[in-house]
Amino acid sequence: MTSNVLAALAEVTTATITTILLKKGIRNAYMRGPKPLTSGYRRLVGAAFTLRFVPAREDLATPESWASPRSTRAAIEDMPAGCICVADARGVTEAGIFGDILVARMEQRGVGALVTDGSLRDAAGVLSCRLPVWCAGVAAPSSVAGHTFVGWQEPIGCGGVAVFPGDIIVADGDGAVVIPQALVEEVAKLGPEQERFENWALAEVQKGAALPGLYPPNEATRARYEAERKR
Amino acid sequence: MTSNVLAALAEVTTATITTILLKKGIRNAYMRGPKPLTSGYRRLVGAAFTLRFVPAREDLATPESWASPRSTRAAIEDMPAGCICVADARGVTEAGIFGDILVARMEQRGVGALVTDGSLRDAAGVLSCRLPVWCAGVAAPSSVAGHTFVGWQEPIGCGGVAVFPGDIIVADGDGAVVIPQALVEEVAKLGPEQERFENWALAEVQKGAALPGLYPPNEATRARYEAERKR
Amino acid sequence: MTSNVLAALAEVTTATITTILLKKGIRNAYMRGPKPLTSGYRRLVGAAFTLRFVPAREDLATPESWASPRSTRAAIEDMPAGCICVADARGVTEAGIFGDILVARMEQRGVGALVTDGSLRDAAGVLSCRLPVWCAGVAAPSSVAGHTFVGWQEPIGCGGVAVFPGDIIVADGDGAVVIPQALVEEVAKLGPEQERFENWALAEVQKGAALPGLYPPNEATRARYEAERKR
Amino acid sequence: MTSNVLAALAEVTTATITTILLKKGIRNAYMRGPKPLTSGYRRLVGAAFTLRFVPAREDLATPESWASPRSTRAAIEDMPAGCICVADARGVTEAGIFGDILVARMEQRGVGALVTDGSLRDAAGVLSCRLPVWCAGVAAPSSVAGHTFVGWQEPIGCGGVAVFPGDIIVADGDGAVVIPQALVEEVAKLGPEQERFENWALAEVQKGAALPGLYPPNEATRARYEAERKR
Amino acid sequence: MTSNVLAALAEVTTATITTILLKKGIRNAYMRGPKPLTSGYRRLVGAAFTLRFVPAREDLATPESWASPRSTRAAIEDMPAGCICVADARGVTEAGIFGDILVARMEQRGVGALVTDGSLRDAAGVLSCRLPVWCAGVAAPSSVAGHTFVGWQEPIGCGGVAVFPGDIIVADGDGAVVIPQALVEEVAKLGPEQERFENWALAEVQKGAALPGLYPPNEATRARYEAERKR
Amino acid sequence: MTSNVLAALAEVTTATITTILLKKGIRNAYMRGPKPLTSGYRRLVGAAFTLRFVPAREDLATPESWASPRSTRAAIEDMPAGCICVADARGVTEAGIFGDILVARMEQRGVGALVTDGSLRDAAGVLSCRLPVWCAGVAAPSSVAGHTFVGWQEPIGCGGVAVFPGDIIVADGDGAVVIPQALVEEVAKLGPEQERFENWALAEVQKGAALPGLYPPNEATRARYEAERKR
Repeated sequence: MTSNVLAALAEVTTATITTILLKKGIRNAYMRGPKPLTSGYRRLVGAAFTLRFVPAREDLATPESWASPRSTRAAIEDMPAGCICVADARGVTEAGIFGDILVARMEQRGVGALVTDGSLRDAAGVLSCRLPVWCAGVAAPSSVAGHTFVGWQEPIGCGGVAVFPGDIIVADGDGAVVIPQALVEEVAKLGPEQERFENWALAEVQKGAALPGLYPPNEATRARYEAERKR
Repeated sequence: MTSNVLAALAEVTTATITTILLKKGIRNAYMRGPKPLTSGYRRLVGAAFTLRFVPAREDLATPESWASPRSTRAAIEDMPAGCICVADARGVTEAGIFGDILVARMEQRGVGALVTDGSLRDAAGVLSCRLPVWCAGVAAPSSVAGHTFVGWQEPIGCGGVAVFPGDIIVADGDGAVVIPQALVEEVAKLGPEQERFENWALAEVQKGAALPGLYPPNEATRARYEAERKR
Repeated sequence: MTSNVLAALAEVTTATITTILLKKGIRNAYMRGPKPLTSGYRRLVGAAFTLRFVPAREDLATPESWASPRSTRAAIEDMPAGCICVADARGVTEAGIFGDILVARMEQRGVGALVTDGSLRDAAGVLSCRLPVWCAGVAAPSSVAGHTFVGWQEPIGCGGVAVFPGDIIVADGDGAVVIPQALVEEVAKLGPEQERFENWALAEVQKGAALPGLYPPNEATRARYEAERKR
Repeated sequence: MTSNVLAALAEVTTATITTILLKKGIRNAYMRGPKPLTSGYRRLVGAAFTLRFVPAREDLATPESWASPRSTRAAIEDMPAGCICVADARGVTEAGIFGDILVARMEQRGVGALVTDGSLRDAAGVLSCRLPVWCAGVAAPSSVAGHTFVGWQEPIGCGGVAVFPGDIIVADGDGAVVIPQALVEEVAKLGPEQERFENWALAEVQKGAALPGLYPPNEATRARYEAERKR
Repeated sequence: MTSNVLAALAEVTTATITTILLKKGIRNAYMRGPKPLTSGYRRLVGAAFTLRFVPAREDLATPESWASPRSTRAAIEDMPAGCICVADARGVTEAGIFGDILVARMEQRGVGALVTDGSLRDAAGVLSCRLPVWCAGVAAPSSVAGHTFVGWQEPIGCGGVAVFPGDIIVADGDGAVVIPQALVEEVAKLGPEQERFENWALAEVQKGAALPGLYPPNEATRARYEAERKR
Repeated sequence: MTSNVLAALAEVTTATITTILLKKGIRNAYMRGPKPLTSGYRRLVGAAFTLRFVPAREDLATPESWASPRSTRAAIEDMPAGCICVADARGVTEAGIFGDILVARMEQRGVGALVTDGSLRDAAGVLSCRLPVWCAGVAAPSSVAGHTFVGWQEPIGCGGVAVFPGDIIVADGDGAVVIPQALVEEVAKLGPEQERFENWALAEVQKGAALPGLYPPNEATRARYEAERKR
C-alpha cells in the first residue's frame, strides 16, 4: 500500500467508506462493538495485524500461559510500526484483553491503534498511554478470565466482520471499518471526492436548500456542483 | 396543544412524568434505547412526527432509493417546526439512520429534536449541528445497510413503546417518554406540583430528615409541606 | 475488617484484585454491568450492604409500597456509615431503582457508594449529590415500573456475581469486584506488592524493554526487580 | 385454598387466566422461560414452594455445599405434597439445577410439578421420572457450575415474574402463570365461564361465523350465547 | 402470479431458494424466528398478507380494542383464500398474537399458513386446527399484553426481513423465506433444476463420490450430469 | 486414546463428566448451543476434528468459494473415521453451515458425529442421513450467507468452550462436552464408578430414602454402598 493511499483514506470518514463499499457490493465491513475508548482521537488508518482468542478453559487460560511462546506478549513483539492491531475477542466483554503494560509496549513499537470487540482492563492506565484504542468495553478481569490466546496473523472475525492480515482498517469516531485489499485503491480515489461533494451539499443545506434533488444530487445539482467546483 | 401546556411540561422531569403515568395505569411509556448523543441538552417537548423503517432488503434498500418520493428526504421536508421526530429503527443499531446533512436540514426546518432507537452516523458531523439527538448508538453504515424506509406519520414502535403521530414526547438526560394525547393536560397540571414537592423533600433530606413518613409523605408531612408552601 | 486492610485495598486496582482472586481459584468476582455513573470517582472500598428486588407485579409494585415497613426507605435507614450498598436489580435497566432523594439520604447516612446492575433515575439529580454510583444505566421510570423490593442484608446476585452481606466491595474506573471475606486479608497483603511490581514493569516498558521475560517476570527480571526495590 | 378452587383452575387454560388477570390490572403474571420438558403433561395447579439461587462463586458453589443444612437437599425434604416447586435460576440455562436423583425424591414426596427459568440436567433420567417439569432448557453441568443455592420459601423472581410462597401456580402447554393469592377465588370463578364461552365461539367459527361481533361478543351474540347456554 | 409458478415453487426447498436469491444479490430473505409449530407440514407457498403490531400501551392495547374496526378480527375477514398471513410482532415472544378461535377463522377463510416472528397462544387449541403455523414461540398472554395492532397490508418487518404485501412466501421445515415479486419467476425456473442437480449429487455421494469437483460441480461433473440427465 | 477409554466414556453421561471435570478445576467444558437435532441418538464419543468459520464478507463468502482448496469440502475429505467434527460458527444461527450433501459425505467417511454452535440447513435432508448432529438451530441460508470458512484442525471456540484438535468430545441428550486430553484417562476411570453410585442412590430414593446423607453420601451411606456393591 503506498503511503499516498493511506494518506488519502485518512481524509475519508468511515461513514463515507461504508457507503462506497456498499455500492461495490460489500455490506458487511463495519465492526459492531469497537468504539473509541475516549474522545479526541484523530482518524487512524493502517494494515490489520490480527490476534485471535478462543474461550477460556481453566487448564489453558492461566497466568502461566502469559510466558508461553504462543502468547500475546510474543505477538506484540511481532507487530510492525504503523499496523493496526485487531483482536478477535468473540464479542466477550467480561474480561480485558490487555492492560496498561501491554498497551504501553504496543505504543513503544509504533503500533497505530488497537481495535477489538472485547474489553480493555485498567482503563485509567490504558488512557494514560497515547495508543488510540477502539474497544467494546472495560472490565477488570485479565484475559485469562475469559479468553485463551491462540495465535496471530490469522484470519479472524471482529465485531461480526471478517478481517484478514493486511486488510486496511480505518477507525474514527463512528467506529472501525475494514477495506478488503482489492478495493483499497478505489476507495482511496472515490472517498475524497465523495467527502468534497458532501461538504458542498451540507453548505447548501445550511444556506436553506431542500433535500430532494440535492442529496442525492439530480442532474441539475450535479452540474451546478461541478461548475462551482471548477471555479 | 396549547403552548402553556408544552411550557409546563418543559419543567417536569421524565422521571416524574413516568411516575404520574404509572399512577394513571400507563407503565409502558419510557423508550428503551434513546439516550442523549451528548451532554448538555435542555429538556425538549413537542408533538411526535413519526418515521418508519423495516429491515433492509438488497433490492429495496439502495442508495438510489434515497431519491424516491417515499424517502427520508421527502419525510423531512414534511416536518413542521417544533415537532419531535421519532424514528422506529426496530432497535437495530448497526446502521445510522441519518448523518450530518439530513440532521442539518431538520435543524433548518425548526425540528425540535430527533429521537430514535437506532443509531446516527457521522457522529462528529451530527454533533456540529445544533439539533438535539436522542439515539441508541453511533454507526458508520448508512441507513440502507440496515433499513428500508417505508413511511412517515404512521403509528410506530420506538424503544419498545407505541408512538402515534401527535403524541407528546418529552426528552431529557434520562431519555425520552411518550405522553398519550388524552393524558397530556393532566400530566402538565400534576407534574409541576410533583416537582415542587420533590424539591422540598430533597431539601428536607439535605437538612437531615429520615425517609419514612417524608417520601412518600404521611399526613403530617403533607400538612407541613402545605403550610410551608403557602408562606 | 481493620481499617488498615481497607486502606491497603484502596491502593489496589480492581484489575489487580481479580488477578489475585483468579490465582486463588475465584474466577467469578467481577460484576458485569455496574460502571461509574460519571468520571472522576476515587476508588471506593467497603463492606457490602445488600438490597434485593424481584420483578414488578402490578399488585405489589405500587407507589403505595414505598411507605411499607419492608421498603427501600426502611432499608436505607438501616445502612451503616462506610458501607457499600449493592442492589440486585437482576440486570434489568428499564427502571431506575433510586432517584435523587434516596441517594441524598444515603449520602447523609455516610454510605460509601452505591453499586447496582440496574439503573438510576433522574440522573441529573443523582449527579448533583456526592455519593459515588456504579450502575448499568439510567432510566426515567421508578423502581415499581420494573421491580418489587423484597428485603435487605440477604445474599444476592449482582452483575452475575454472588454477594453476601459483609463481603468486601472494591469499585473503581473498571467497575466493581467482590472479595469473599475469607480472602480479604490476603488480597490486602498481595495487592500492594503486585501494584508495585506492575508500576516498575510499566516503567521498564516505557524505557524500551520487550515483554517476554519482563511481564510475567522470569527469574532474572524478578531478581533485578528485587534488587532495585531494595535500593 | 379449598380443593374446589384448585379443581376449578385445573379446567382453565393459562391463556384464559392471563386474560382475566390483565382485566384485573395484572399484566406481568406469565413466566418467560419455563416450558414443558416433554409433551403430554396434564395441566398442573398448586401452591408455590420457592427455591432461590444466586450466581456461582467458586468458594461457595462446590460439591461439598450439597451436604450443607442450607442445601437443595434440605429444601426438598421440606416440600409438602401437592406444592409446585418454583426455582429462581435468574434465567441462567448453562447449568442444570437438578438431575434425576433430586427429581425422583420430589416425586416421592408428592410434589406436583417443578417450574424453573433455568435448566434441568440429565434430561433422560429426569424424563424417566413421572414428575412434570417446566424448564427453560437442558444442560449437563451441575447446579454449582452456575448457581449458589441460598434458601427456600422466600419471595423470588422466575421468568421475569414475582412469585411469593403460597401464590397459586398453573402450568400447561403454554407455560406457567402465577395467580396472586388475593385473586385466586375470582379467577377460579370467572375462568370456567370464560372457557365455556370460548368453546361456544370456536364452534360458531367452525360453523362459518365471522369474527366481528362474535369474539369479543357484541350484545346480540352475548344474548344468543346466554339463550343457548340455558337450553 | 400464475398457479404454475406457485406449483413449481412448492417443489423447491427454502434452502435452495435462499441460495438462488443470494446469487441474485439478495442475502436477507430468510426470516429469523418463525419455525414450524409442529412437524409434518408440507411446504406452503403463497402471497404475503401482512399484519402489523407496535408495542402495547395500556391505553390502547385493551380487550376492548378487539372490537374496533382496526382490529385483528377485521384484518382476518379481509384475508383472501390462499394467502400466507405474515405478522410483524417485532420478535416479541412474550404474548401470543392469536389463539385457537382466530386461527380457526383463518382456516375457514382458506388462508394457506400463518407466519410470525412472535408467539401463538393456547398452543393446544391452535394445534387442533389444521392451519399450518410458523412462529417463534408459544406464550399464554393475549396479544394486548405485548402488542397494539395497527393495520394490515402495509410493508412490515418479520424476523429481520422486509415483507411487502404480495411478495411470495415459501415456508418449510427450515423456516420461511420471502421472494421479492420481481424475482419470483426466475426462482421458479431455476429452483427445480437446482433441486434436480442436488438430488443427483446426493446420490453420487451415497455411491461414494468425494466432494471436490462434485459439489459445486466442475466442468467434467457438469458434463456427466447433463449427459445422464438426458438419458 | 485406547478404544477401552472411549468405550468407558460411552457409558458416562455428560452430566457426570462435567461434575468430574469441575472437581478437577475445569468449569468451562460444556458447550452452550449444540443440542441433538432429533431424539434417539446414542451417546457419541470421539476425538475432535475442528472447523473454523469467521463472519461472511461478500467478496469472500461466495458460492464460488466452495470450490477453493481451503473449503469445507476439502476439510471433509480430510476427516478420519470415528472423529467428531466440531464446527465453530461463533454462535451464529442465521445460516446453515452444512446441508444434506455434505452431511452424507461425512457419513460416508465414517465421521462419528457433527457438533456446532451454528445451524444446519435443509433439516429434512440432514435427518434422512444417519450422521448424528448436535447443533444450535436450523436455517435455510447457506453457509456463505453468514460465514467465511477459513480452516480446519485449528484451535476453536464452540458454544463458549475452547476445543483443540484431538480433545475428546462426548455428546448425549444433554448436549456436548469437551474433555481436555490430559484428563481423559482419569475421567474414563472415575466416570463409570460415579454412574454406578448414582444408580444405586436413585434406587434408594425410589425405595423412599431421604436425600440428606444419601446424596452426596455421608460416611455411613458410603460404607453401606461399598458393602452392597461387593455382594
